[in-house]
Amino acid sequence: MAKSDSISMSVIRRLPRYYRFLSELEEKNVDKISSTKLAKIMNVTASQVRQDLNCFGGFGQQGYGYSVTYLKEEIKRLLGLNNNYQAILIGAGNLGKAVAMHMNFEKLGIHLTACFENDPQKIGDKINDLSVLSESDLEMYCNSHTVDTAFLCIPRTGVENIIDKLYLLGIKNYWNFSHYDITSKYSDTLVENVHLSDSLMTLCYKMNNLNS
Amino acid sequence: MAKSDSISMSVIRRLPRYYRFLSELEEKNVDKISSTKLAKIMNVTASQVRQDLNCFGGFGQQGYGYSVTYLKEEIKRLLGLNNNYQAILIGAGNLGKAVAMHMNFEKLGIHLTACFENDPQKIGDKINDLSVLSESDLEMYCNSHTVDTAFLCIPRTGVENIIDKLYLLGIKNYWNFSHYDITSKYSDTLVENVHLSDSLMTLCYKMNNLNS
Repeated sequence: MAKSDSISMSVIRRLPRYYRFLSELEEKNVDKISSTKLAKIMNVTASQVRQDLNCFGGFGQQGYGYSVTYLKEEIKRLLGLNNNYQAILIGAGNLGKAVAMHMNFEKLGIHLTACFENDPQKIGDKINDLSVLSESDLEMYCNSHTVDTAFLCIPRTGVENIIDKLYLLGIKNYWNFSHYDITSKYSDTLVENVHLSDSLMTLCYKMNNLNS
Repeated sequence: MAKSDSISMSVIRRLPRYYRFLSELEEKNVDKISSTKLAKIMNVTASQVRQDLNCFGGFGQQGYGYSVTYLKEEIKRLLGLNNNYQAILIGAGNLGKAVAMHMNFEKLGIHLTACFENDPQKIGDKINDLSVLSESDLEMYCNSHTVDTAFLCIPRTGVENIIDKLYLLGIKNYWNFSHYDITSKYSDTLVENVHLSDSLMTLCYKMNNLNS
């Protein structure tokens, strides 16, 4: 299967949804699915499904449809969910706790191995089976453990304060819940920004324009 | 400016980002901006910017660019952020607390007026200046207050248990953090689902495919 830097982000952003829906189909013991049916679940056109999957080399057979498990496993591989990524969490406030407790990281093949916080009152707290560590232990931890990515569950100013340290420790992949623009400072980082307000504004748009 | 049901969701989903970037430009006292510069900030092509904004009737003048404040205000109006929407929060766990405390609802013109919970240990807690109410008070509250939308910060089974009640109380717009599929049960609802795992999988894709 082809790997390509030229695949558009809008195709890439649909891959997790394919993965999610295919996982649900697999749980329901569905063996195979046509592009038409998959399109209906995904709320896109069948031609879009075929185009999307062709970006990665196909996976379907004319007149047969897609094997659910095969397609799911291929997308899983594309998404790097077999890579055993090791992650740390920065911030043990409500957001950090919610992210750590709400998400099923293991299902995504990700291991959350440590959590750091600079509020002395939160250090030592338990999140799942992790004890919250002090941010002053960050350097020692990162020097003795593999850390593929950091989840930044702190406000913009917090990220501003800690980003140089993380970058110098070699962490260049971020799941960023703050509004701090990391790539404008460090262009060789990979960042996925979560803007919850964008999602809420989309709901407002629907309420404003689509309500009967 | 034209309102249309035929505008694609991918255009609509870019509106909040336009709004966010235009708000930042306005804060920096930028008066006007060309489609080329706006495209660069948005990380799309200039032709995409023009196409997107043409869906809503334009707003630009050939050779002049866009007035930042005018465009921001028009998008704000399109997004319904002037509508004083009244919202309630269902769930006062870590996720509900994080959402309530992390988001600047007032900036989006949304008023979070009450928060409900069925865990007796959490009832009476303070979130911002709201006291967490019991879910048993939901009916009384909704019958005496305007509620435009509910933010569902509870697990899938929790939504399954409460959705009929909310729907019967006339609440048909949901910001849904659970994986429960509301529209498949009630097709006349407007739902914006937040799938944090999709965002994290996108980061994994980047790490797997774009890292040098």
